Amino acid sequence: MRWWGWGEGAGAVTLPAAAESMLRSELSLDPTRGVERMALEDVWLPEAALSARARRRLVAVVGEGCVREDRLSRVSHAGGKSYPDLVRARFGAAAGAPDAVVLPASSAQVAGLLQACAAEGVAVVPFGGGTSVVGGVEALKGAHGAAIALDLSRMDAIVSLDRTSLTATLQPGLFGPELERRLGAEGLTLGHFPQSFEFSTVGGWVATRSAGQASTGYGAIDELVQAVELQAPAGTLRTRDAPASAAGPPLRELIVGSEGVLGVITEATLAIRPRPEDRHFEAWSFQTFEEGVGAFRAMEQADSSPDVARLSDEEETRLFKALGSSGGLTERAGDRYLRLRGHGGACLAFTGFEGSRTEVARRRGHTAELLRAAGGLSLGTRPGRSWLRGRFAAPYLRDDLLDRGVMVETLETATRWSNLGALYAAVRSALVEALSQRGTPPLVMCHVSHLYRSGASLYFTFFARQERGAQLPQWRAAKQAAGDAILAHGGTITHHHAVGRDHAPWIEAEVGELGLDVLRAVKERLDPDGIMNPGKLLP
Amino acid sequence: MRWWGWGEGAGAVTLPAAAESMLRSELSLDPTRGVERMALEDVWLPEAALSARARRRLVAVVGEGCVREDRLSRVSHAGGKSYPDLVRARFGAAAGAPDAVVLPASSAQVAGLLQACAAEGVAVVPFGGGTSVVGGVEALKGAHGAAIALDLSRMDAIVSLDRTSLTATLQPGLFGPELERRLGAEGLTLGHFPQSFEFSTVGGWVATRSAGQASTGYGAIDELVQAVELQAPAGTLRTRDAPASAAGPPLRELIVGSEGVLGVITEATLAIRPRPEDRHFEAWSFQTFEEGVGAFRAMEQADSSPDVARLSDEEETRLFKALGSSGGLTERAGDRYLRLRGHGGACLAFTGFEGSRTEVARRRGHTAELLRAAGGLSLGTRPGRSWLRGRFAAPYLRDDLLDRGVMVETLETATRWSNLGALYAAVRSALVEALSQRGTPPLVMCHVSHLYRSGASLYFTFFARQERGAQLPQWRAAKQAAGDAILAHGGTITHHHAVGRDHAPWIEAEVGELGLDVLRAVKERLDPDGIMNPGKLLP
Repeated sequence: MRWWGWGEGAGAVTLPAAAESMLRSELSLDPTRGVERMALEDVWLPEAALSARARRRLVAVVGEGCVREDRLSRVSHAGGKSYPDLVRARFGAAAGAPDAVVLPASSAQVAGLLQACAAEGVAVVPFGGGTSVVGGVEALKGAHGAAIALDLSRMDAIVSLDRTSLTATLQPGLFGPELERRLGAEGLTLGHFPQSFEFSTVGGWVATRSAGQASTGYGAIDELVQAVELQAPAGTLRTRDAPASAAGPPLRELIVGSEGVLGVITEATLAIRPRPEDRHFEAWSFQTFEEGVGAFRAMEQADSSPDVARLSDEEETRLFKALGSSGGLTERAGDRYLRLRGHGGACLAFTGFEGSRTEVARRRGHTAELLRAAGGLSLGTRPGRSWLRGRFAAPYLRDDLLDRGVMVETLETATRWSNLGALYAAVRSALVEALSQRGTPPLVMCHVSHLYRSGASLYFTFFARQERGAQLPQWRAAKQAAGDAILAHGGTITHHHAVGRDHAPWIEAEVGELGLDVLRAVKERLDPDGIMNPGKLLP
Repeated sequence: MRWWGWGEGAGAVTLPAAAESMLRSELSLDPTRGVERMALEDVWLPEAALSARARRRLVAVVGEGCVREDRLSRVSHAGGKSYPDLVRARFGAAAGAPDAVVLPASSAQVAGLLQACAAEGVAVVPFGGGTSVVGGVEALKGAHGAAIALDLSRMDAIVSLDRTSLTATLQPGLFGPELERRLGAEGLTLGHFPQSFEFSTVGGWVATRSAGQASTGYGAIDELVQAVELQAPAGTLRTRDAPASAAGPPLRELIVGSEGVLGVITEATLAIRPRPEDRHFEAWSFQTFEEGVGAFRAMEQADSSPDVARLSDEEETRLFKALGSSGGLTERAGDRYLRLRGHGGACLAFTGFEGSRTEVARRRGHTAELLRAAGGLSLGTRPGRSWLRGRFAAPYLRDDLLDRGVMVETLETATRWSNLGALYAAVRSALVEALSQRGTPPLVMCHVSHLYRSGASLYFTFFARQERGAQLPQWRAAKQAAGDAILAHGGTITHHHAVGRDHAPWIEAEVGELGLDVLRAVKERLDPDGIMNPGKLLP
């Protein structure tokens, strides 16, 4: 992964001309502005603060080659991939770099490292793929003198497969593509495809309650976890592997979403499925966002949701067309057809079905009936296939946008169906107002995805001209306005990006003062010295 | 509810002759033995230990009429409806009676009562319908001088209905039938039908992670809870009402299943559904239990499970026939037909579908195909309808069995499909061995229900001749053997009966030493004086 951006060089994506001209004119970009990015050797890196004794103890556990203090290792573990992370990286400020990157090979080594770090007063930041977009992996030291990144990429085994029960016990450092390749060779799949899929890990998904593009059908990761093992400074916690239990509150739920502040997830048993025989993606158009939301609700509450469901608002649809991600819709004939049918400024939706040939055919037929009855116009499979091809491309595009001086950020929430319209309007206006006040009026777009019988998530993307020299205050103003609007209007501060450092200021509003105290009591028991991922999740 | 047994007098059920003769001969019952049961006025009741000052403080919160110390109130809150509870009640030992029964009318009154009890050193036992079968409501005092039962039956309002999001916010004291009557008047249902349905409450279901007969389809109660309010001695905890969230570990999951040891659940927001238009119950026969388990697994993993799914083993099928619960199967023609098809000693299964007419027809057609392919023989709708009629009768029957000197007890667990056969065999032999050693060889039967993609629950019922004068040691020996076998062979100590007092000895084996410590840390934070339901859940 490039330390200053997304992915590897080969995957880079450039903005298509239509989208570039849309953003240039609507955000009043300065086309003459050059790319601001610093070379690795010029990055400012704090001096490594790990004591020689602490270092020796870590080496004693994992071996010399697995305690790394070189510049690239430290810089590439200095943060995740949020907008502020990328801004800081481009400016060459690696204040969040760990003093060392340590790579354990086993659960026992993790336990040994935690003992050593607790004794030596070293903070520990569990690091999977490092794709956090909420400041989840910055190596903050808390009250300690040094901090290490615990890179779990060596722990990448499939520990066991239970084909009868359809579960797989996995180590945390397995990356998405490798996991799917290995499961695929056995005719199986996990079906978990977050946008970060290519560069994120099993442990990261479980630690952050991740949701993927097919989670409407397969379930978010928290619905797939059957059991977990946590190595905490206070010891090992292993939950019982049963499909369900009434033996008190499930500790599994305390570990899933604990974001490294309680310990290190060293194993997870996840539900898997047979690899789908067939796959069908289809695009739909709705005259308004509201009409589309009503159609999605009807579909979900009739138990007829597809595995992938996504409905863009008018603005996101407009960008899709400019990006060419809408397949045939950018062509004149497509646009003319939509206008003729009264869908000129309409909203695009995608449905995706996976499974056996007969089941896919039956389900999509039933869903199509419901969507048509609710005002939907089928656009066929071409735009759907086009979306599928480009579905992991957005984070690459972000690098190109940053090169052009565009601020681009996403945020997400979830709420009840009855509150969806009000929350959508509130977050939109909060972002427009906060950024317009600074003289950088934004483009704000949104989609609905991750459907539940009682509600759905709202996923916002916004763009604005960067305030040169004030990129971070500009971002902070927008983030603050959006977060406050979400909490004030009945949303949750995050549906699947997790809390990290960026959402920590809202966690008390989310869970209440007593709720926060309860989480702190759990942390104190599992991590009495407070070495685990300081400054994240719990403010 | 009768203090010494189940339900009201009107619902009483007597064992049919065929079943009586089956049990009499196979358990070597003594037909001359008389009924042992004591009159209310002869019950031994400990002297009420509530101080005058504590009493005045409770009266100040709820009013004079809502602090009850009469004999019937105290005796009927002395325990739940487990086999040992009923044995003790029949012997007139109400050692577990609370010193007073207090009936709050609001969440604020509950908070006031907890303040008063914490100040006065009075233990508090939340009491819904009192149907616990694991000793969950016995008024143990822990380290305190007195204990009250907090009877929540006055808090029985539907606080709000969100028809768009299909959720209902309910008070805890609502009983099953009244809830379904009120939701039904609006064309809605919760769809939660535990065997205790007629006499259990919303709060009790949530506090114990209850599962109902239709939970394969509707989901167990923990899957239906969207948000909860807990009044704890340390304050109020209210979780955010969102369909999903990644804002840290969900505190909702700590409260659901907390069995009154953390505080009192004073409100719950639950997912509801439109009342089903159609309902279809069908019975099936499989030549062996193993074949039936394989068929159920195939059905569940193909996403084709009915809403109600239940597969009895050979022994339970035999009792069903004797009880006449199998509809036409007790008639000679039915039996002859089964023998002719090679299903003479076979296993009975039920499938139940609910929903729109077209969906029920489609789903049952698809499921029938799968079951037939896996060796199932359809027995039509008659036995299914018969089961449906009698589905809340079993607890009534238990009273009749106790009258006849029969020990009858149930216990349940859950495990992965790959481990189901081994766990089934282990629990069966543990029970047979433990009770045979005492000279009372049992009849042990079992059914599979509550299907999950990765596994299912096993529900055991066993019968033995009571050891007169040693009913409780006899029960304890059987329970100990079964619990140990469950933990040793990969099961969970309870799938939906909860922990209470009876399963507390196994909770450390279930969650581990560190896991238990974490639960204790949560309890210490929410209930610093340890007044909440002492002796339950946490040993």
